[in-house]
Amino acid sequence: MAFSRFAKRMDQLKASEIREILKLTERPEVISFAGGLPDPELFPIRELQLIAVKVLEEHGKEALQYATTEGYRPLRDKIALRMNRTLGTAWTADNILITSGSQQGIDLAGKAFLDEGDVIFCESPSYLGAIQAFRAYGPEFVEVPTDHEGMDIVQLRELLQTTQRAKLIYVIPDFQNPTGRSWTLARRQELIKLANEFDLVIIEDNPYGELRFEGEPIPSLQSLDTEGRVLHLGTFSKTFCPGLRMGWTAADSAIIPKLVLLKQGADLQASTISQRQLDAYLETYDLGEQIVKIVEVYRKRRDTMMEALRREMPADVRFNIPSGGLFTWLELAPELNARDLLVRCLDHNVAFVPGGSFYPNGGHENTLRLNYSNMTEERIIEGIARLGKVLREYTAELQASPLSI
Amino acid sequence: MAFSRFAKRMDQLKASEIREILKLTERPEVISFAGGLPDPELFPIRELQLIAVKVLEEHGKEALQYATTEGYRPLRDKIALRMNRTLGTAWTADNILITSGSQQGIDLAGKAFLDEGDVIFCESPSYLGAIQAFRAYGPEFVEVPTDHEGMDIVQLRELLQTTQRAKLIYVIPDFQNPTGRSWTLARRQELIKLANEFDLVIIEDNPYGELRFEGEPIPSLQSLDTEGRVLHLGTFSKTFCPGLRMGWTAADSAIIPKLVLLKQGADLQASTISQRQLDAYLETYDLGEQIVKIVEVYRKRRDTMMEALRREMPADVRFNIPSGGLFTWLELAPELNARDLLVRCLDHNVAFVPGGSFYPNGGHENTLRLNYSNMTEERIIEGIARLGKVLREYTAELQASPLSI
Repeated sequence: MAFSRFAKRMDQLKASEIREILKLTERPEVISFAGGLPDPELFPIRELQLIAVKVLEEHGKEALQYATTEGYRPLRDKIALRMNRTLGTAWTADNILITSGSQQGIDLAGKAFLDEGDVIFCESPSYLGAIQAFRAYGPEFVEVPTDHEGMDIVQLRELLQTTQRAKLIYVIPDFQNPTGRSWTLARRQELIKLANEFDLVIIEDNPYGELRFEGEPIPSLQSLDTEGRVLHLGTFSKTFCPGLRMGWTAADSAIIPKLVLLKQGADLQASTISQRQLDAYLETYDLGEQIVKIVEVYRKRRDTMMEALRREMPADVRFNIPSGGLFTWLELAPELNARDLLVRCLDHNVAFVPGGSFYPNGGHENTLRLNYSNMTEERIIEGIARLGKVLREYTAELQASPLSI
Repeated sequence: MAFSRFAKRMDQLKASEIREILKLTERPEVISFAGGLPDPELFPIRELQLIAVKVLEEHGKEALQYATTEGYRPLRDKIALRMNRTLGTAWTADNILITSGSQQGIDLAGKAFLDEGDVIFCESPSYLGAIQAFRAYGPEFVEVPTDHEGMDIVQLRELLQTTQRAKLIYVIPDFQNPTGRSWTLARRQELIKLANEFDLVIIEDNPYGELRFEGEPIPSLQSLDTEGRVLHLGTFSKTFCPGLRMGWTAADSAIIPKLVLLKQGADLQASTISQRQLDAYLETYDLGEQIVKIVEVYRKRRDTMMEALRREMPADVRFNIPSGGLFTWLELAPELNARDLLVRCLDHNVAFVPGGSFYPNGGHENTLRLNYSNMTEERIIEGIARLGKVLREYTAELQASPLSI
């Protein structure tokens, strides 16, 4: 019997369904579309070996010692320059805080801006790891209806007009998790206008933006911001590797020092040696080339999955064709429940994440998320065939059941 | 002009004095006793090079991929076994969560247990990084008078009897930061009794316990706990190296899953590759031997500093003789102010941390902390001589000043 006078916030937290499911699907015979993992075959292992030795050889003492909370300045310089080139910002190292993955950027932003009872607006659906991080600070979540162009701005305005204590908008404008959708430029511009009008901070979470399969990049929210109210969260987890836990937050130079104070309390600093290794990698190799390699592989897998879905899914299943990132999103007929479907699928060794998990206020149980980044094309074809078969059986049974009449 | 509607908690946070001072003292001519850094000459750089290559060679894909929030199980096994051997606990891997340094353990404990207005009891003085981490959750701090044997238990009982919403006791029982003092067994036993009686959780922060110069280890609070109310925070920062950010929290198996949920939201997981490297190091080498090396070096430096203090300090300066760890603590005559002394010392290229920073509710400006772990004996001797000279000049001026009459 352990001490159990937990803080009130703990009542709100429950184990992430994705993670519990991932545990069930680790058996090799399961074809799991549930994860969100990059393909480890693409990790630059050999390059990292050379760099690991070099960093310890040349700067071993510094690389293994404590360092500043802000992060290693040459790395912050490189990140600022890279953002300015690819995302249209105008940052220097002083606008960059190195974080433990972009997940930590979400947590620090929540801590910096949210009082209990403040309202967060998020896409419906949204990334559940962000919801989990924010929830610790006691906010209310307002889901904004979101379509293939981004949030419905008319509805967002209406919600803002009737909401007390609106504080923060959390969005993933490029190849969103879970849907794979991106925002149009027009919607981004309108969002910035609304944020200015209602004095809100925007968290632009961008783990997937560089994994674009086709088309031109759309300007980042941060590049459209003229009032220092957009925090941009970046990560090397999808373009380099997640195991080093290297991410960053880019923000106005008046905001970064506040986040630095919070990071000091949270964990003092990101890993010194990982920062130096990443810096040496960016110095020695071309991350752009690495991204081209990743994009080629994932694009083929996306194509394979789309073909398979067209072939195997019943006609009333709607799915998104993502132009980048790791995920696609399915909407089944309204009477179907993806959690029930998952139970049946596990019996046939295929898995996915039920979409209901991605809605902070529940519902939408007829949706599901599929990942295609970490799987051979053969397994994608076989897995979608299994999913289609189980789905047809489930639908048929439901239609035959007296309860459904 | 950036967005500035920060959460209320941000009003309470200010830049850590230690860190601002450290920036001033980076010039090589300054002999700085201000830091709390291990000596990088003792880092096992060569061993880590071999291990870095081996881990990437043998398990590159796994080491660079996402992994579970709890941490790498073989590492958690080793930590549990090591604790059971050295600290008298009876844990398994299920009682261990890998954290980003022990600092993250402090933050997660605060998040798990503290509602706004809850009361934390801490030693007076205490580690200011803990105070900073806890402060984000809006508690009140009650400082408990602390002497060479630990907290004054009689006064703690009185404080508890008159405190509403007592929740948490934060202590560093071995070679405390900032004082270098340790708790006696009797005080530890009495603390556990009080925690049971008043239904409190205890955070036992133990970054220095293994750096013992002489005498027998004193049983850990966690080994004395029979009710699952002690969280033990450990770290490899002082016994191995801080740059990998490897720490852990050990707790009852009913508490760990709650902390895991919070860590998921905070940063998903600790670095996969750092965990695997540390595990391989513990597998391949003897951490105990490494600790013996560190202890031999720091013991000599402690001795050198104590001799120098005896020689150089005015008779009314009191200082602690630590039996381990990185710090000693000075109490000057009550009319002296260590912040003023520091300003004068910086002109003579010697630095320390004024002790007032370590008191959450302020005061005690006649105290200061000295670190001896990251400095040659020559520089310790020279630095303490400078400190003594400046202190004597300062005292003389103060006595000559008309204001002091």
